[in-house]
Amino acid sequence: MTSNVHAYPEPVSVEDATIDDEFWTPRIETVRETTIDFVYDRLVESGRIENFRVAAGHVDGEFQGRFYNDSDVYKWLEGACYFLATDEDSELRKRIDEVVDLLVDAQEDDGYLNTYFQLVEPEMKWTNLHVLHELYCAGHLFEAAIAHEEATGEERLLDVATAFADHIDRRFGPDGKDGVPGHEEIELALVKLYRVTGEERYLDLAQYFVDRRGAADSRLAYEVSHPEEIAGEPSDHVVDDGEYDGRYLQDHAPLREQETVEGHAVRAMYFYTGAADVALETDDEELLDVLEGLWENMTTKRMYVTGAVGSSHVGERFTEDYDLPNDTSYAETCAALGSILWNQRLLQLTGEARYGDLQSRTLYNAFLAGLSLDGRRFFYANPHEMGTDGHPLHDEDPNRFAAQRQGWFETACCPTNVPRLVGSLGSHVYAVGNASLYVNHHIGSEATVELGETTVTVDQETAFPWDAETTISVTPEEPLTFELALRIPSWCSDVSVTVAASDGERTEESVEASPGEFCRIEREWAPGDEVRFGAGFPVQFLRGHPALESDAGRVAVQRGPIVYCLEGTDSPRPLHQVELDPDGDVGIEHDDELLDGVTTLDLDALVPEESSWTDEELYKPDSQVDTEPVTVRAIPYYGWANRGEDEMRVWVEAASRRSAGPK
Amino acid sequence: MTSNVHAYPEPVSVEDATIDDEFWTPRIETVRETTIDFVYDRLVESGRIENFRVAAGHVDGEFQGRFYNDSDVYKWLEGACYFLATDEDSELRKRIDEVVDLLVDAQEDDGYLNTYFQLVEPEMKWTNLHVLHELYCAGHLFEAAIAHEEATGEERLLDVATAFADHIDRRFGPDGKDGVPGHEEIELALVKLYRVTGEERYLDLAQYFVDRRGAADSRLAYEVSHPEEIAGEPSDHVVDDGEYDGRYLQDHAPLREQETVEGHAVRAMYFYTGAADVALETDDEELLDVLEGLWENMTTKRMYVTGAVGSSHVGERFTEDYDLPNDTSYAETCAALGSILWNQRLLQLTGEARYGDLQSRTLYNAFLAGLSLDGRRFFYANPHEMGTDGHPLHDEDPNRFAAQRQGWFETACCPTNVPRLVGSLGSHVYAVGNASLYVNHHIGSEATVELGETTVTVDQETAFPWDAETTISVTPEEPLTFELALRIPSWCSDVSVTVAASDGERTEESVEASPGEFCRIEREWAPGDEVRFGAGFPVQFLRGHPALESDAGRVAVQRGPIVYCLEGTDSPRPLHQVELDPDGDVGIEHDDELLDGVTTLDLDALVPEESSWTDEELYKPDSQVDTEPVTVRAIPYYGWANRGEDEMRVWVEAASRRSAGPK
Repeated sequence: MTSNVHAYPEPVSVEDATIDDEFWTPRIETVRETTIDFVYDRLVESGRIENFRVAAGHVDGEFQGRFYNDSDVYKWLEGACYFLATDEDSELRKRIDEVVDLLVDAQEDDGYLNTYFQLVEPEMKWTNLHVLHELYCAGHLFEAAIAHEEATGEERLLDVATAFADHIDRRFGPDGKDGVPGHEEIELALVKLYRVTGEERYLDLAQYFVDRRGAADSRLAYEVSHPEEIAGEPSDHVVDDGEYDGRYLQDHAPLREQETVEGHAVRAMYFYTGAADVALETDDEELLDVLEGLWENMTTKRMYVTGAVGSSHVGERFTEDYDLPNDTSYAETCAALGSILWNQRLLQLTGEARYGDLQSRTLYNAFLAGLSLDGRRFFYANPHEMGTDGHPLHDEDPNRFAAQRQGWFETACCPTNVPRLVGSLGSHVYAVGNASLYVNHHIGSEATVELGETTVTVDQETAFPWDAETTISVTPEEPLTFELALRIPSWCSDVSVTVAASDGERTEESVEASPGEFCRIEREWAPGDEVRFGAGFPVQFLRGHPALESDAGRVAVQRGPIVYCLEGTDSPRPLHQVELDPDGDVGIEHDDELLDGVTTLDLDALVPEESSWTDEELYKPDSQVDTEPVTVRAIPYYGWANRGEDEMRVWVEAASRRSAGPK
Repeated sequence: MTSNVHAYPEPVSVEDATIDDEFWTPRIETVRETTIDFVYDRLVESGRIENFRVAAGHVDGEFQGRFYNDSDVYKWLEGACYFLATDEDSELRKRIDEVVDLLVDAQEDDGYLNTYFQLVEPEMKWTNLHVLHELYCAGHLFEAAIAHEEATGEERLLDVATAFADHIDRRFGPDGKDGVPGHEEIELALVKLYRVTGEERYLDLAQYFVDRRGAADSRLAYEVSHPEEIAGEPSDHVVDDGEYDGRYLQDHAPLREQETVEGHAVRAMYFYTGAADVALETDDEELLDVLEGLWENMTTKRMYVTGAVGSSHVGERFTEDYDLPNDTSYAETCAALGSILWNQRLLQLTGEARYGDLQSRTLYNAFLAGLSLDGRRFFYANPHEMGTDGHPLHDEDPNRFAAQRQGWFETACCPTNVPRLVGSLGSHVYAVGNASLYVNHHIGSEATVELGETTVTVDQETAFPWDAETTISVTPEEPLTFELALRIPSWCSDVSVTVAASDGERTEESVEASPGEFCRIEREWAPGDEVRFGAGFPVQFLRGHPALESDAGRVAVQRGPIVYCLEGTDSPRPLHQVELDPDGDVGIEHDDELLDGVTTLDLDALVPEESSWTDEELYKPDSQVDTEPVTVRAIPYYGWANRGEDEMRVWVEAASRRSAGPK
C-alpha cells in the first residue's frame, strides 16, 4: 500500500457545517433538547460536579464516585460546547459558564487539576498511571477547552488546559520523569492543543507518549511490580501468570512493532487516533504503515459487521482473530466512537475512501445503537444477539449483558460520549483544502468554507441512509476552480454522478465514479452548479468468514450503510426457528411511524412446519419434518430495544436445503 | 394410559446372569480389573475409609472431606460385591471384608452410623436433613449390605443395615419425629431391605418418606427458617426471593400433585425410583399414574437425545421445558444411572417396552459416556458440545465444563456409581415370573432361572449394538410351556423374529413382532429351541422439537441404540463449518482398533468452499460464497474425549439450501 501522508484536507470545524437532514436532524435535536440536560442532571446527582466544587474550596465535602469521574464532566462540557457552537442557547451557555468557573477555581496553582487526587490522595499524584486515569482525564479537559474556545471565543478554559498541559509537560517527556498514560486519550488531545496554540512542546509530548509506550523498561510494568509505591492497587488485567503483560494497555511492545489490535478497545482506538495525529503532524510514513496494518487486522479479523469492536467483557477488549461472539459481544459504544475518530485520521492521512466507508458503517450501526430514540438511555456494551431470557436458571453467565439501554452507569463514559460525536457530526461530513472540497458523508447539511480566498457555500440534500440520492449545490462567491471529491460508498451499485452546470442554459454532464472511491470532479464551479449522485441500493445478505464460529450457517442483512436485525416482535416465530432465504424476495418499505421512521425489509424465511410436530415429540427423524414459508420484518440494528424487552438477532440462520425443492 | 401394576416380573438377581458379550464384556472386565481398584485407592487417599477407622476408635484423627463421603464407601462396596457375586476373587473379598469390619466397628450402639456426625457434630444428628445427607448415606449403606449378603451369604453388614434402619424407623415416620431426606435414595433402599428381610416397617417408612415429601408444613422448610437449630447452614438452592422453595428437593408439592420433573436431577431420579418401588409393593395405581405423567414430561420436554437429564449447572438440575443447552449441558452421569433405575421400575409396573427402550438409550449414551475406555477417568457433567477452547479470554463462563474426564472429584458420586451399574448389568437384561421370561436387552449373556419348578437356561448371542441380530437359546431341564417376551427396539425396521424348534427335525416359524413392543412367544419350549431376531439398522438423522433453541437448524445422528457425535479429529474442518446432509450417503464401517472397537459413520457434509474466501475478507455477500462437499466421520458419543482434548458436537448444523442445486 502506498502511504500518502496528508492526502486529505482538514475537516471543517463544527460551527462551519450545519446539519439539515431528515435522518440526523431529529437525532441531533433529541440530544440537544434531552440528552445534554439528562446527562448534566446525572453529573449533578452523582456528585461529579460537586467534586469540583469541593476541590475549589466552595464547599466542604469528600470526593464522590470513581477516580475517573472528572472526565465525564469534561466530555459533557465538550459535547455541550459543540451544540452551543451551532445554536445560541443562553441557558446552556449559563450552565457551561458555571462549570467552567468551577474548573478555573479547582485548578491548583501549579496547573494540576484532578479532583480525585486533590481530594483523596494529594501526595500520590502520578504514581499509578496504569490505573488511575490522570492523563486520560487531562486529555478530555484539553478537548473540552478547545471546544469551549471555539464555541465562545473565550480562553478561560483553554488557559486552564494549557496550564495543566504545561504542568504535565514539565513532569513527563524525555527530559522529565518517565511514564505514559494507562488509558490513552491525551495524545490526540495534545495534538489538538498544539494545533490551536501552536506550541510544539505539546506535539513533542504527544509523540513521546506514542513512542515511549511499550518500551522494555515500561513505567507501567514498574508500577505493577512496586505496588507499595503507587496509589491504589495494580490492575488485574495486566498480570498474566504473575508476569506483567501490557497487552491490555497496548503496552506490550512499541507501537511500531505492533501488528494486531490488542487490549482494551477504547484505549486502543484512542491510542491509534493519537498516533495517527502524530503521524499527520510529523509526516511519519512509517507510523502510518503500522496503523494501516493494525486497521487491516481489525477490519479483516476482529470487527463486528456493525463496525463494533472489542468482543470480550473480560477487560472490555480485543481478544483473538475471529473471536466475535454475538450474544456476549462487548462492542462498547465508546469503542465505536473511537473507531470513527481513528478512521477520520486515516482518511486524512491517506485520502482513501475505505476509511470513510467504515466511519459510515460504524456511525449508523455500532455507535447509533448506543442511544435510545428518546435520548435518555444508553447501551454501554452492545449485544449482537439477545435471547428471550426464558431460562433464568442459566442466567449466572456473567458474559451476558443488559437487554435494554440503561439511564446511567457508574462508569458513564458512553452517555457522555454520545453528545460529543452527535454534536460534532458536521466536522466529519466535509473537509477543505486550498483547492479541494471533500464530501465524505451523504448527510444533508450546509457548510460555508474558505477555498483559497473565496468563500464557498455547499448545500447537500440527500435521501441517505434510506435511498442513494444526493444533490450537492456548490455556490462560490464567484466562479472558482477546485476539486470536489464525493465519496461513493462501496455498497453502491449502478452509480451515476452528473454535474449540472448553471452556465447560461443548464447542462448535465456525466462523471466517472466507482463504488469505494472518491469521485473527483475538478472544474470551474459557478454559483448554482450541482452534483447529482444516484445509485442502486441493493439488499445484501452477508456471510461471515468460515473461521467466525459465531456466524456459522448464518447470514446478516444490510442495505446501504444500515445493518439490519430481527426483533422477536416482528417475527411470527421465535428467532431461533427462523431461517432466512438469501435468494428470496425482499419487501422494502419505509414506515414513518416505526422507530421514528425507518425503512424495513420484509424477508422470506422458512420455519419448522407446525403440523410436523406435536408437543408429545421431542426428537424425530428429519425425514418426518418439514418447513413452511413465512415473512419476517427486519429493522435497522440501531433501532433495536426501543419497543420493550425482546429477543434480537443480527446473524440469522440461513435456510436449510430442505426448502429447495420437493423431498 | 392403562396402568398395569406389576405387569412385568422380577429382574433376575445379579449372580444369576453372566454377561458374555463382545461389547460389554471388555467394559465389565475393565471395571473389574481397573475401576474397582482405582476407586478404592481414591477412597483411601481421600480419607473416606479412614473416617470409619477413626469413628470405630481404631485410630485417632479427624473427619476428612465432605459430609456425604460415607456414601462413596458404601457405593464402592455395593459395586464390588456385584463383581464378587459373579466371579470369585479372594483379594477383592479380603478388601471387602476389611471395609465391612470397619463399618461394624464404627456403628454406634443405638444403630447410628454416619462418620461426619459421629466425628464432627455428634449433638446435631438429624437436625439438617435438607443438606447433610444422613438418610441418603443410610440408603447406600442398605444397598451395599444387601449386595454383600447376596454375594457372600454373610449377614454381618445386613445386620448393620437393619440396626440403622431400625434406628431411623424409631426416629422418623408417622409416630416418630417428622422429616424426609434432603437427598432421596433411602426410599428405594428401604423397599429393597423390606424385600430381603420381609420387615413391613421398612416399606411403611419408605411410603411415609414418599408421601410426606412436599407437605405444606415441610420439615425441610422449617430447617431453612430456623438456621439456629440446625447443623451447618441452610442451602442456597431452596430459597427464592427469601421464601422457601423446595423445588430443588422435589419438596415443592406432594408427589401426587407433581406434573413436571423438577430440581436436582439425581435426587429426582432416585425419588421417582423409590416411589415406583412403593407403588409396586402397595399396588398403588394412582402413584403409578403420577410417575407416568412425570416420565412423559421428562421424555417429551426435558431430556437430551442421549437420554441424559438435568440441564443446568446451577443446582445440577432440571430447569424448564425445552431448556437443553448442548455446550453447558449438566447431564450428570449419576442422573443417567438414576433414570435407568427409574425406567426399570416403570417397566416392572407396566410391562411397556418404551421403558426398556429408554434404558437402552440412556445406558449406551448418557451413562457410558461417563467412563473413559481405560476405566480410570470419569465425567461428572457430560457436555453435548465442546468448543476448541480457542478463546481463553471468554473462558470465565462458569457454565462450561471439563473437556476431559477427570480421575476423581471432591464429590465422587459418579465414579462410585459406575461399578454399581456395570456390575449389576445382568439384572437389567432378564426378568422372570412364574410362566414368563422377559428379555429386555440384547446383550450377550447366560442366565439360569427358575420358571415354576423348572430350571431354564437362557443363552443370548447378539451383534448389538452394532448390528440387529440376536439369537436366544432356551434350555429348560424338561419341555415347559411359558411366555418368552423379547423387547423389539423402537428404532428397528424390517423386524423378523423366528422360533427355531429342535423337535425331531428342525423347523422355523415366523412370529409377529413390532418395533417398540415386546414380542411375546407363548409355547412349549424344549431344550435347544432358539429365538432368532433380525432387523434393519437404519441411520437416523434426528431433528429436535422447534422449541429446542439449542438444536435449531441442526441434526443428530443415531443408529440403533447408539447416538453419534463428531470429534474435531475426524473432520477435515472445524465442526462449526460442517453442515451434515441428512439425505446424503452414509458409509458404515466397523473399526476394531478405534476406541476399543466401534462402528463409525462416514457422513456427507458441506463446508464453506475454500476458494470462496481469502483471509483479507471478513464479511462478503452470500451470492459470492459457495460450499464444497466433504466426508466427516461420526463416532459413538460414549467414546468421545478418549483421544485427547478436541472439539465435539452431538447436534451438527444441517446443510444449507445453497447445496441443493445450481445457484
